[in-house]
Amino acid sequence: MNFPNKLKQIILSQDEKVIRILNYCLFVAIIISVFLVIIDSVNSLHYTFYRQLKLAEFLFTGLFSLEYIVRFLVAKNRLNYVFSFLGIIDLISILPTYINFFWTGLPSFFILKVLRLLRIFRILKLIQFYAEAEALGEALKKSFHKITVFLTVVLILVLIIGSLMYLIEGTEGGFTSIPQSVYWTIVTITTVGYGDIAPQTALGKFLASVLMLIGYGIIAVPTGIVTADLSNAKTMAKSLKTCPNCLHSDHDLDAKYCKYCSHVLKL
Amino acid sequence: MNFPNKLKQIILSQDEKVIRILNYCLFVAIIISVFLVIIDSVNSLHYTFYRQLKLAEFLFTGLFSLEYIVRFLVAKNRLNYVFSFLGIIDLISILPTYINFFWTGLPSFFILKVLRLLRIFRILKLIQFYAEAEALGEALKKSFHKITVFLTVVLILVLIIGSLMYLIEGTEGGFTSIPQSVYWTIVTITTVGYGDIAPQTALGKFLASVLMLIGYGIIAVPTGIVTADLSNAKTMAKSLKTCPNCLHSDHDLDAKYCKYCSHVLKL
Amino acid sequence: MNFPNKLKQIILSQDEKVIRILNYCLFVAIIISVFLVIIDSVNSLHYTFYRQLKLAEFLFTGLFSLEYIVRFLVAKNRLNYVFSFLGIIDLISILPTYINFFWTGLPSFFILKVLRLLRIFRILKLIQFYAEAEALGEALKKSFHKITVFLTVVLILVLIIGSLMYLIEGTEGGFTSIPQSVYWTIVTITTVGYGDIAPQTALGKFLASVLMLIGYGIIAVPTGIVTADLSNAKTMAKSLKTCPNCLHSDHDLDAKYCKYCSHVLKL
Amino acid sequence: MNFPNKLKQIILSQDEKVIRILNYCLFVAIIISVFLVIIDSVNSLHYTFYRQLKLAEFLFTGLFSLEYIVRFLVAKNRLNYVFSFLGIIDLISILPTYINFFWTGLPSFFILKVLRLLRIFRILKLIQFYAEAEALGEALKKSFHKITVFLTVVLILVLIIGSLMYLIEGTEGGFTSIPQSVYWTIVTITTVGYGDIAPQTALGKFLASVLMLIGYGIIAVPTGIVTADLSNAKTMAKSLKTCPNCLHSDHDLDAKYCKYCSHVLKL
Repeated sequence: MNFPNKLKQIILSQDEKVIRILNYCLFVAIIISVFLVIIDSVNSLHYTFYRQLKLAEFLFTGLFSLEYIVRFLVAKNRLNYVFSFLGIIDLISILPTYINFFWTGLPSFFILKVLRLLRIFRILKLIQFYAEAEALGEALKKSFHKITVFLTVVLILVLIIGSLMYLIEGTEGGFTSIPQSVYWTIVTITTVGYGDIAPQTALGKFLASVLMLIGYGIIAVPTGIVTADLSNAKTMAKSLKTCPNCLHSDHDLDAKYCKYCSHVLKL
Repeated sequence: MNFPNKLKQIILSQDEKVIRILNYCLFVAIIISVFLVIIDSVNSLHYTFYRQLKLAEFLFTGLFSLEYIVRFLVAKNRLNYVFSFLGIIDLISILPTYINFFWTGLPSFFILKVLRLLRIFRILKLIQFYAEAEALGEALKKSFHKITVFLTVVLILVLIIGSLMYLIEGTEGGFTSIPQSVYWTIVTITTVGYGDIAPQTALGKFLASVLMLIGYGIIAVPTGIVTADLSNAKTMAKSLKTCPNCLHSDHDLDAKYCKYCSHVLKL
Repeated sequence: MNFPNKLKQIILSQDEKVIRILNYCLFVAIIISVFLVIIDSVNSLHYTFYRQLKLAEFLFTGLFSLEYIVRFLVAKNRLNYVFSFLGIIDLISILPTYINFFWTGLPSFFILKVLRLLRIFRILKLIQFYAEAEALGEALKKSFHKITVFLTVVLILVLIIGSLMYLIEGTEGGFTSIPQSVYWTIVTITTVGYGDIAPQTALGKFLASVLMLIGYGIIAVPTGIVTADLSNAKTMAKSLKTCPNCLHSDHDLDAKYCKYCSHVLKL
Repeated sequence: MNFPNKLKQIILSQDEKVIRILNYCLFVAIIISVFLVIIDSVNSLHYTFYRQLKLAEFLFTGLFSLEYIVRFLVAKNRLNYVFSFLGIIDLISILPTYINFFWTGLPSFFILKVLRLLRIFRILKLIQFYAEAEALGEALKKSFHKITVFLTVVLILVLIIGSLMYLIEGTEGGFTSIPQSVYWTIVTITTVGYGDIAPQTALGKFLASVLMLIGYGIIAVPTGIVTADLSNAKTMAKSLKTCPNCLHSDHDLDAKYCKYCSHVLKL
């Protein structure tokens, strides 16, 4: 495996500036490619720009394939990279186009739609650029247990009130079954309030009012939990360190080794 | 009463692991049985899976009946258990099926529906598995008085603005009476906003705008109250201690005696 | 003025228990009388219970008139009571019924409706029972200046985005004028979202999305302000002290003199 | 440049009281002129009060032109003033009326509408009167980075869930393309909930419920961030100092020099 070592050396010998520019190009490429997937889903635009979109798709898939190969070759532990979160995202970013291309038979319309949409997960490649994403995730993870308890309480509440509304309202208001009724209860307690299902009877409206006030009041609980936790949390890291080995760049300020490939980081 | 003592001894002699596995089985049984009640309420599924749902219902009622009998026999103070919150929930979980079964005459459709829905309260059996539920409840209880004052202020506001809207809007907008108008005001101040009732006149829209901004602003008050209280609150207990006597498992970390049956807890 | 002094002496000689019972009766009377005004506004109930509602109205007006007279006679500074907030509320609670009764000509339907609705302001009599209402009001007053600045910023934002939407959307979506457009903007930024007016064009939907995310994000600002202020606020008083002179009962724990009539309070 | 100096001297020789009165007049003029622009957009009022609105428009433009000229002449560094935020706003406040007046050809209806609406940006002139606006902006700027990260996470979430809903729901529910679907997702996650687009399938409703609970839960994150930041923030300045040179009045309490023209401020 001489080539990968040579590649690694080439990358390591680059100026930090070059790496940063490459990173920014990648950032822009991800944004554009996701934007094209979105555009592609609009029927009129899909037919008008069919050829241009197809071409751009191949170019971006090529670029991301190249990125995937480089990251794979350069990684210290290749298997670790392949099965890491970022590795899987990197793969999902390119696979659908290849499957679509090499599919010999005629795939069903639904599978085609799924394949096309899978490309939108490319947006997750952005995560590597956000050092804070992890800090935020850490803060959320700390509050996770309490929020789970909170959500369980909310779900129990939603289930019981939903069932009562099903009993009180009957079918004319749209409360045709418990799942439907629970759906309405969630729409109401979270203060979304579509209005496609709405209570018709006086008793139903009274119970709905109580539910709204509960929802309005208990929103304070998760807010309080997260606020109290965040007040104690460490300041978020703001670095954009890049690992000279695997090129990933979301490292804590005090990190000495790359958490993806354990390579030493420049201080 | 030789049998209960023997039963108690059998349970006490079990490994903690066995108790834990039994607890998990119970947890899953509760979830599944509630899920089946939900499924049962969907008309098409009710008729398709009539026999299977009936069968499952009898099995789960049998299981929960067994649980109830064991808890009853094993409890130090049986009367305390029967009239405790969890004891009542345990009873409500099994009673409807028996009433439905032994009802000699032909019950009305509404009573049948109520009986079927009462089974959904089984979900409350889950509470015993959440040690934090109590800690959360404790925090809420501490804020309860302040939140009551807050809700009273909100209700006074809602009543006065609701009456004004009734005066301003008249019947064409849907503001046909004060209760209806108050219902709209609650829907608006809690930012739910169904849109089935909406102001039509310029003055009504202006007052509605003021109301929305008030609702948007005062949501901060309960949030502030709970946050301030939670910041001072003790850390939530995370234990899953199980009482060797009555098998309930939501005890504080520093609890020495079971709060349901006063039995001493293992440290 | 011998009679007022005698009356005062009678009241002062009463046990605190008697005063408390009288207070609770008044509390219940206020609630019931407001409830009857609400019921009265429902057309079907208004005609069915016409005579009963009329009778109850006279009874409650009599009771509140008696209360007003006693408070007036007993007050140290009668003029102060008459023009105090509670004094005005006490007067508004009884006046509409008398006006309605003594009106010689035939009042218009609208004036009748106004008079009937004015009675709903009786609910404000409840305020005297809540010692915390004042503490809460105090906390809000402290945050008032900052919240005003916040609301000004929101209103400037609403005005500018509302005008842009009016420009972009045109009349078919319901954005027929700037006031209408601003109304929609407030409905959206406060996350109420009726849906009676909604953007139709792609650009309008994009701007609406931005507006929603802004509204979702800046709700944090007033919440943060109030929370920070409340954390520093003194603990709310929880007393239900009753002044032996004017019978008002919302005094701070550390109050030595009645704030309504300056009479010394029992410790 | 003798005249500007003379003007400056005249202004400086004025009592602070006179300056304050002038400021208040300006404040009222801004409010009224914006109010007239709003009124002007209502079709019926536009035609009824055509002449009066036209006249008022010229008067206010004259007043603001005078203000602009005085500020320009009096400013130490005139170029700085012209290209400052307030200078640009001051210019936008008067330009549209002049363009409209001196336009020789017949402008299209759309350009006319744009010109008329540009005048609404006059509302931004209010900013100079709010010393706290800057303090608030400062606090927001401090939280800005974290809120950007939060919004990025929300947007990634919105994009992925929006695409899934597009896949699940199909066109009959209104999910005709990814942009449309993402629009619905934002409407839902921010708890606005118009109801013009709503899921029809069971799976879609389930995913929508999850989305609502996520939106309900993560609102806590920005709130927590801002609250934690605000708790540490300095107390907001409340001064209304006026610079004797350029007459701007939003200076910090501890400011020694005007931040717009660097003139020394009176202590």
